[in-house]
Amino acid sequence: MNTTNNRVFSNNFNWTSHYNSLSMASIRSGLKDCVNPDTLRAYLAEFLSTFFFVFAAAGSTMASRKMSPEAVADPASLVGTAVANAFALTVAVYISVGVSGGHVNPAVTMARAVCGHVSISVAIFYWTSQLLGSVMACLVLKVTTVQQHVPLLEIPQEMTGFGASILEGVMTFALVYTVYAAGDARRGAIGSAGPLAIGLIAGANVLASGPFTGGAMNPAYAFGTGLVGGSFQNQAVYWIGPLVGGVVGGVMYDKVVFPVSESPDSMRGLTEVGGV
Amino acid sequence: MNTTNNRVFSNNFNWTSHYNSLSMASIRSGLKDCVNPDTLRAYLAEFLSTFFFVFAAAGSTMASRKMSPEAVADPASLVGTAVANAFALTVAVYISVGVSGGHVNPAVTMARAVCGHVSISVAIFYWTSQLLGSVMACLVLKVTTVQQHVPLLEIPQEMTGFGASILEGVMTFALVYTVYAAGDARRGAIGSAGPLAIGLIAGANVLASGPFTGGAMNPAYAFGTGLVGGSFQNQAVYWIGPLVGGVVGGVMYDKVVFPVSESPDSMRGLTEVGGV
Amino acid sequence: MNTTNNRVFSNNFNWTSHYNSLSMASIRSGLKDCVNPDTLRAYLAEFLSTFFFVFAAAGSTMASRKMSPEAVADPASLVGTAVANAFALTVAVYISVGVSGGHVNPAVTMARAVCGHVSISVAIFYWTSQLLGSVMACLVLKVTTVQQHVPLLEIPQEMTGFGASILEGVMTFALVYTVYAAGDARRGAIGSAGPLAIGLIAGANVLASGPFTGGAMNPAYAFGTGLVGGSFQNQAVYWIGPLVGGVVGGVMYDKVVFPVSESPDSMRGLTEVGGV
Amino acid sequence: MNTTNNRVFSNNFNWTSHYNSLSMASIRSGLKDCVNPDTLRAYLAEFLSTFFFVFAAAGSTMASRKMSPEAVADPASLVGTAVANAFALTVAVYISVGVSGGHVNPAVTMARAVCGHVSISVAIFYWTSQLLGSVMACLVLKVTTVQQHVPLLEIPQEMTGFGASILEGVMTFALVYTVYAAGDARRGAIGSAGPLAIGLIAGANVLASGPFTGGAMNPAYAFGTGLVGGSFQNQAVYWIGPLVGGVVGGVMYDKVVFPVSESPDSMRGLTEVGGV
Repeated sequence: MNTTNNRVFSNNFNWTSHYNSLSMASIRSGLKDCVNPDTLRAYLAEFLSTFFFVFAAAGSTMASRKMSPEAVADPASLVGTAVANAFALTVAVYISVGVSGGHVNPAVTMARAVCGHVSISVAIFYWTSQLLGSVMACLVLKVTTVQQHVPLLEIPQEMTGFGASILEGVMTFALVYTVYAAGDARRGAIGSAGPLAIGLIAGANVLASGPFTGGAMNPAYAFGTGLVGGSFQNQAVYWIGPLVGGVVGGVMYDKVVFPVSESPDSMRGLTEVGGV
Repeated sequence: MNTTNNRVFSNNFNWTSHYNSLSMASIRSGLKDCVNPDTLRAYLAEFLSTFFFVFAAAGSTMASRKMSPEAVADPASLVGTAVANAFALTVAVYISVGVSGGHVNPAVTMARAVCGHVSISVAIFYWTSQLLGSVMACLVLKVTTVQQHVPLLEIPQEMTGFGASILEGVMTFALVYTVYAAGDARRGAIGSAGPLAIGLIAGANVLASGPFTGGAMNPAYAFGTGLVGGSFQNQAVYWIGPLVGGVVGGVMYDKVVFPVSESPDSMRGLTEVGGV
Repeated sequence: MNTTNNRVFSNNFNWTSHYNSLSMASIRSGLKDCVNPDTLRAYLAEFLSTFFFVFAAAGSTMASRKMSPEAVADPASLVGTAVANAFALTVAVYISVGVSGGHVNPAVTMARAVCGHVSISVAIFYWTSQLLGSVMACLVLKVTTVQQHVPLLEIPQEMTGFGASILEGVMTFALVYTVYAAGDARRGAIGSAGPLAIGLIAGANVLASGPFTGGAMNPAYAFGTGLVGGSFQNQAVYWIGPLVGGVVGGVMYDKVVFPVSESPDSMRGLTEVGGV
Repeated sequence: MNTTNNRVFSNNFNWTSHYNSLSMASIRSGLKDCVNPDTLRAYLAEFLSTFFFVFAAAGSTMASRKMSPEAVADPASLVGTAVANAFALTVAVYISVGVSGGHVNPAVTMARAVCGHVSISVAIFYWTSQLLGSVMACLVLKVTTVQQHVPLLEIPQEMTGFGASILEGVMTFALVYTVYAAGDARRGAIGSAGPLAIGLIAGANVLASGPFTGGAMNPAYAFGTGLVGGSFQNQAVYWIGPLVGGVVGGVMYDKVVFPVSESPDSMRGLTEVGGV
């Protein structure tokens, strides 16, 4: 049980012991333990990171449209949006990983909750912080740019909602699997590239899926742009696909490909690392 | 007080003790302590880094305009400018972080001064070095390219100066917050990705704001291009927003999300790291 | 013989001992030792990583074509495809390096087999996993996007198959050479940037060869797009060039530029690292 | 004198002692010591790295031209070329840094020679290897692509050769300064990002100077494309500017901003690191 907690992203971070005691406490009790200075800072970190990420992701789409008045997306716009996603998600994870684990995405939080890394009650507060951060970012963009519309996620006519959901689910599978690999304390020095890997897989998938589903891989992004943009069409696609794909990705990493319990040797290594 | 100084960017850097003694000395006295071999090297490092950054950031805009004679910015130009900003800022911070802390931006210096990490008098020399570096970079670009104009920051007609200032302020908030996270000595190995994270958030925000405010997030950039480009229109937008946003971002990180004093455990870890 | 095993990518990875015992066992016996929980996890890791990589690489080409109906590739499309290749390959290697060595490419596996780092039988399972991953990624793309064709690798009329094969071979030489450098345990801390270096050389070569050969450097990519796209034209080009080039690249690194046996001093350093 | 040698790029590399003994020996004697197994491997590493770099840098320009038949460079082409430069130079330095120091550029070798880090005779072999690598890369590109021309560096009519030389010199100053910072053994963990920083400053400067001077910053690149492309026009611009700028950049870092001798404290730290 202690080993499970060691799996959160913690490359020589002094907050590790912190985070562990926080999440263990959370598991024990309910709502009451979810509201204390440590958890409040974690929620604030999730709010800020999601705000920064959605600001850049949605803003880059608005910027492209502003520069091509016919509002027809072209390959250069897609590159811009993908790079903004990659860069901003890298940073969003980088700055919050020490205090909240750097989820920045309800699908990541859901996978972490299913795998038992965070309690349900903490997960609900994380979700709330992420959704608020996304809505706030879209509001700031809408108000300051005056005449611009916050971009809605769209699916081309020939595609079905089911197909779009599969596509989003597969990409979120890849994203959450990468998040788990990046946060695996057994990886040592290479772990320091974790936030970058998370950002890069998001950018790569946006490039692969831009004109098909938009490459959200993040229900908070879909919610924020939907609420401020004024349309909840297709919300189900951007919630069901990512949440299911994310949980499957997390379980695949945690239980199948890199299980803790299967290998006594690596366990021992793990304990030694945790013991120092 | 000693712990505060440990917060400057110093990933296993042998100059750390150096830098600490420098900034402590600066706090004690006034102008006299600001001019010695150590500080002069720091000012020179800030000058060079800001020069390299502004050269690439302003130069990439000039290059795009040179290649599209109608001078209408398109998404590909924006990608070029954003990538130049990200790459150059990463390097500018990387090369100066050991001697000057890698500010490269008056907004960062202001936040550091407000948080008590550098003295007011050193901050004034930093500002001067940054402004000189920016002006010099713009002059070199203007003279060598002969017929090209140094690009001025522009705001579209429908936007207000207040809205632009908010946008620049929010983005500088994100930038300075990332600078603080990158420079946090408690982060261990992951800190080595700090300069990259700082460059990436700048690039992401340029992609989000290019056609709206230009995504300066740096009063020195605005000053250099304004002086050499021959127009100080909108300067207030690019000074007030970033300076206020930067200070709020720094204080948010330092006092709210990752405070030193709140957590005795991490304090101890910090001292241990510093003690080695 | 023990030193040879230390050459696999293992930056402070606790799985190293794991991997070593696995590959040594494999060398000793035949098919039987290739099928056990450890190797099955390695095959699954190769399957997933190749799936993620081909999904982003093929998907980004499909996305560009969707956005430019005349289907004429332009420089911006090439940038998108190259960036998708670079980002996705970085992540594909990053997430699998601890369990399978992060090959993600039959040319890498072939070089590793020729150099004696993996046994022939394990290599055959790796190949199978990689080809299956590629086919699966193309199928998912084809089914979910409904009207889109999976992109086939094409060679311009004026070029010969031999010239194209040379070009692919030279680029795969560079890729596999980089893979070997990245996986060299003697490199210490700099090794943590290994997956990124592998991704970047792939991206750079796609930019250099896009309109000439497509820059596959990976027989699995050629096989998956060929099978699902319905044409095996030019397959020989994308198998012979990369396999030969990859083996030459691996041997060049392993036996000529950075040989283990030639330098007793570095050997000793190597043993010390392995001994800890 | 020993401390000077510690300045070469060597992040926990086991080859360090190797390299030191190599360069010390070189300084002592002349041509004879320049030809032994260790130095031959270093020359081969420089040849391969320069080959890979020029292949991607020149190839990406050829690819852009192939895709835009009017051969008019546009912003998207510039992004492609800049990204290819950044990615390929990062990798070229990464793979050779352990055996040759990762110069990949006659301007870097010249600066190293002037600062006394390599002997004149070794420098001449480095130059030869780099020029051969560049010529070879251009030949492979020319032969395999059949109808394509290797791109020549061009300067727009309104610019003077002197101005172009200044521009190339300033950019090479930034590049070599970054090379020195990246190779400074005192930087600890952050040094592992060194090859990336070197690649990024090259990419940023290509974005800033593409339509003006092409952003070569590397006489070997100018020589290879000139020889195979069939014109040595403007060669002086691409030799004088970079060589002078590079030497000034190296001296600035080594003697002014980060001098070893000036700070007894950091010297001691340096010795401690070297002693372990």
